[in-house]
Amino acid sequence: MNIREVPMNRVHITDPFWSARQRLMTDVTIPYMEKILRDEVPGAAKSHAISNFRMAAGEETGMFYGMVFQDSDVAKWLEAAAYSLALKPDAALESRVDDVVALLSRCQQEDGYLNTYYTVREPGNRWTNLLECHELYCAGHLIEAGAALFEATGKRNLLDLCIRLADHICQRFGEGGEEAIPGHQEIEIGLMRLYHATGCERYRDMALRFLNLRGQDPQWFMKHTPKHPDIHYGDYDILPEDTAYNQSDVPVREQTVARGHAVRQVYMLTAMADAAASTKDAELLAACERMFDNITQKQMYVTGAIGSTSHRESFTVDYDLPADRCYGETCASVAMCFFAREMLRTKTYGRYADLLETELFNAALSGMQLDGQRFFYVNPLQVDPAVSGKAPGYQHVLPERPQWHACACCPPNLARLLTSLGKYLWSEDESTVYSHLFAGSTVQTALAEIALTTEYPWNGKASYVIEACRADAFALAIHIPAHAKGLRVTLNGEEIKGEWRDGYFSIRRTWQPGDQVDVTFDMPVRRLHAHPRVRDCAGKAALARGPIVYCLESEDNPAPLSGLYLSGRVEALPYDPDLLGGVVPIRAEGFRRIETDDLYSEAEPQYEPVTLTAIPYYAWTNRGPGEMTVWINEK
Amino acid sequence: MNIREVPMNRVHITDPFWSARQRLMTDVTIPYMEKILRDEVPGAAKSHAISNFRMAAGEETGMFYGMVFQDSDVAKWLEAAAYSLALKPDAALESRVDDVVALLSRCQQEDGYLNTYYTVREPGNRWTNLLECHELYCAGHLIEAGAALFEATGKRNLLDLCIRLADHICQRFGEGGEEAIPGHQEIEIGLMRLYHATGCERYRDMALRFLNLRGQDPQWFMKHTPKHPDIHYGDYDILPEDTAYNQSDVPVREQTVARGHAVRQVYMLTAMADAAASTKDAELLAACERMFDNITQKQMYVTGAIGSTSHRESFTVDYDLPADRCYGETCASVAMCFFAREMLRTKTYGRYADLLETELFNAALSGMQLDGQRFFYVNPLQVDPAVSGKAPGYQHVLPERPQWHACACCPPNLARLLTSLGKYLWSEDESTVYSHLFAGSTVQTALAEIALTTEYPWNGKASYVIEACRADAFALAIHIPAHAKGLRVTLNGEEIKGEWRDGYFSIRRTWQPGDQVDVTFDMPVRRLHAHPRVRDCAGKAALARGPIVYCLESEDNPAPLSGLYLSGRVEALPYDPDLLGGVVPIRAEGFRRIETDDLYSEAEPQYEPVTLTAIPYYAWTNRGPGEMTVWINEK
Repeated sequence: MNIREVPMNRVHITDPFWSARQRLMTDVTIPYMEKILRDEVPGAAKSHAISNFRMAAGEETGMFYGMVFQDSDVAKWLEAAAYSLALKPDAALESRVDDVVALLSRCQQEDGYLNTYYTVREPGNRWTNLLECHELYCAGHLIEAGAALFEATGKRNLLDLCIRLADHICQRFGEGGEEAIPGHQEIEIGLMRLYHATGCERYRDMALRFLNLRGQDPQWFMKHTPKHPDIHYGDYDILPEDTAYNQSDVPVREQTVARGHAVRQVYMLTAMADAAASTKDAELLAACERMFDNITQKQMYVTGAIGSTSHRESFTVDYDLPADRCYGETCASVAMCFFAREMLRTKTYGRYADLLETELFNAALSGMQLDGQRFFYVNPLQVDPAVSGKAPGYQHVLPERPQWHACACCPPNLARLLTSLGKYLWSEDESTVYSHLFAGSTVQTALAEIALTTEYPWNGKASYVIEACRADAFALAIHIPAHAKGLRVTLNGEEIKGEWRDGYFSIRRTWQPGDQVDVTFDMPVRRLHAHPRVRDCAGKAALARGPIVYCLESEDNPAPLSGLYLSGRVEALPYDPDLLGGVVPIRAEGFRRIETDDLYSEAEPQYEPVTLTAIPYYAWTNRGPGEMTVWINEK
Repeated sequence: MNIREVPMNRVHITDPFWSARQRLMTDVTIPYMEKILRDEVPGAAKSHAISNFRMAAGEETGMFYGMVFQDSDVAKWLEAAAYSLALKPDAALESRVDDVVALLSRCQQEDGYLNTYYTVREPGNRWTNLLECHELYCAGHLIEAGAALFEATGKRNLLDLCIRLADHICQRFGEGGEEAIPGHQEIEIGLMRLYHATGCERYRDMALRFLNLRGQDPQWFMKHTPKHPDIHYGDYDILPEDTAYNQSDVPVREQTVARGHAVRQVYMLTAMADAAASTKDAELLAACERMFDNITQKQMYVTGAIGSTSHRESFTVDYDLPADRCYGETCASVAMCFFAREMLRTKTYGRYADLLETELFNAALSGMQLDGQRFFYVNPLQVDPAVSGKAPGYQHVLPERPQWHACACCPPNLARLLTSLGKYLWSEDESTVYSHLFAGSTVQTALAEIALTTEYPWNGKASYVIEACRADAFALAIHIPAHAKGLRVTLNGEEIKGEWRDGYFSIRRTWQPGDQVDVTFDMPVRRLHAHPRVRDCAGKAALARGPIVYCLESEDNPAPLSGLYLSGRVEALPYDPDLLGGVVPIRAEGFRRIETDDLYSEAEPQYEPVTLTAIPYYAWTNRGPGEMTVWINEK
């Protein structure tokens, strides 16, 4: 059975929670990003990304500026803009997109090559430094944009440009060509998308070749990286001998433990899972499953954040998950959504959909201010402004989202995720429609047209109405989140017992238009405890309700938060439409330790009762900076 | 009233705990260090320190090797060797010391200057880079050694050399000369010692001038540091603009919060306290008292360790005391002993003596392996070999003491502290003999000869026998540690009520030879809690008994230690002479959290009862590497 994605133009999101965020993207963030790329936002960090293309096209003079992968900001914006056009037709935006595509065409070399850094700064050196220079990474993002624009609008202008670029890459690096591996995985995702968009197996094979070559020779980057002590392509040196950093130390099929740069790791897994789903390659799939287990069961924060250290934005070792020095790059959580979605193509397995929920409602969403105009790169689980953002080891942990970043990878990544959210909700195979996430939407599949309405994430209620359907029997398989309690499913008002498979509740029957399935379940506040090997969480609990992880902020609770203790009853308060864009806060009974002067005391600590108020983690630091913690002491 | 130090040759330590450690120093560590300085230990990091002097004397060819302050290793060894000669006459050692002094004499320039780095490598540039090049620092240590050798043996050979060096410094930097401040405080301590040894006020005034100039112009180092991008004098750059690093941002009399490099900070405070005690300078004393309070009440680990970050070996901010990333340099705790001792010259105040106890029995002593042959630079309060010593942010936290260090400041610092311990135990003024620490010893003061025997630190028992005394009345004032419970003091077997003053129990009377004062008190196991603002200690307790802080090691307790919880009874076990050189272990009732596979679980955590065994912190990692923690979860 082939599990197929439902094309994005067959899904329409109607969900209050997600529609509002998609509107933020289409109406605020994507136009704002475009201004950033054009250097039109006063006070924000300079981007110069569009100027770089103008210079590469010979239409502007000056020096290349920005990261060596600055092109990818334009590519990710193009991808997000493509999805935006699908969500909300906008002739002016479409015309500006076309203008940018035309600009890119004017930069593209005759042989298909396209990269402004090399064209402007080192025209003779292209493809000589795959470790640091991100040409394949930028190409991958551009190809994703080309596929997205084609998918969203049917236009081939960017797709054709990308095909020329991909052909150039295949010719140079494909079977019979140079044996090479990319310094930052991403081209593999782009090539797989191009394969899906065009059906041309050459691109799939090129993606597989890049994947399969990686780690075959752990010395590869040491042998193929030029020595250039005076040129630094990134904020810090990428060392060819740090082979774990870009996962080139071990063949990808033999990898068992996530390590190195988190985004590189998960982009690679995304492409691996896509290739495994597309080719039924059992060995590749087994590697993906091992890595999924390692990340989610040993190296992931409770919010879904990954990357325990700012040092090279990396994984560290199993169970090393310090809340206050967490890296948790927004891009890495976005990448986890990509990975989960591809894993759902290999198997409809509840844990993949649960991961998607965790990332979407927590670590990924935390990357964005509620107004859609400020963004986090780093998403810590504990912040104390006395040290965060300034003391050694905490400089990366900002207590407020900045306006923009010199390295602007995260905002557009979030934008392309949220605007393409329709692609994550549903899939189908020959005889089943799968619903992965409770997000209000209508979907047209080969089997049926279905309308889903839900009060998620604030209440455990979802209704599926079959609006049209095939005459013969098929199944509707609904992912029930692992946290759901007291599940009750009715068909046209009558309780039914479906068939359970891997976290999906499946109802197989001959459907009639108008049939309605109602799913209800309880979402009590949960107290989560971490594995005892997670040193930083010993004696602490995190609060969650439904898919949402909560946190305490000093805005609502007496500082220092390290002096507060959970104890006794916790309860969800009613939905408050006026708080933080509309949230269900949590109230908990607790204690506050009474402060004395002593730094260390043998006196029994004294406590006073206090009521604690927790808010969804994703909404933290929207009311000014202060202390925040996800993990709360218990008594 | 002038509180006077008792000269070291008037104190003889007879204490089982400390004598054994002094013997280790005289018999093992000091000879070992000498071999290291002479590059005679196979496998240990190269020192080259003696060779540098030979080259400076023109008796060897080659290049200067080592830290720019490599000379200070020889100076600190000379100081420790001097004390060693006082403890245990050794003609061969004395002759080798004399040989080294003669070598140094041959290096000394005609004008008194002495520094091998400049003599060998940059002869034209002396005194041009006070920020980085440690000439005054090395001079300070050498002067300390000169004073020590004079004090211990009466020999003037090194003292006279140091007087020439100090005169050279006074001429260049004294009143009317160049206005300069040292990049690493230490010369101020040396000059104060030279003042005490010679009575010559010129040296005291030079020390005060260095102290008083510091911070008057926070730009000083920016104005007076040469630009030399190719020369790095340390492992990392010392930045002239980081004025807090060497406490030159604010005049020393106005400083209120410890910051920057911990050793620099506390060496400076040591000299300030010495100068305040010597000149009765109330403003200087007030600054010392403020800083003492800030360090001990806001920025000190429970073991006495200071310096919360490896980044520039520095203090960070109040209450930022992460156990697992602690720097806690051995030198900084040794320096705290120096500071406490000088503060005891300003006032006999129990908290100063309590600090001395805390440092000696914990953070300082932890710097040394029980065999006296391996040393810690960094003294963390929590170690997990999964990350310690390797993961980002933990590289400095070694799970085992190394054999030697490229930057070898700590081992000789510990050696000079332990061999001169006699100088810390007693002091006197016109009418009182003060006993600061329970350490078995005999002392000859102007007022009396007293023999102290004690079972400290394992039992709260100490007996003072007056062996000879002045005919008229005087007081014996005994520091009673703040932790002592149920104090009982008898005079010749009869319970007496003395006079309490600032933590000292004072008995004033006309004494007779043979009078005996017995002090007994209880030392129950204490559970210490940190201030609630210390984020890392929330929900945790540390165990202590008497002056000794305890820790858990995985050697005695089931790993992971983060899964263990204190609960219920704690008790001291009998003294075990065969364990770790003889210790009183602590047994505690507790729980072990039962591990499950889940990284995060809403299931109520399950526990099983377990008996926890704690050992003195100073003795950790003497049985191979493993996990260690001072702070233990509480339930």
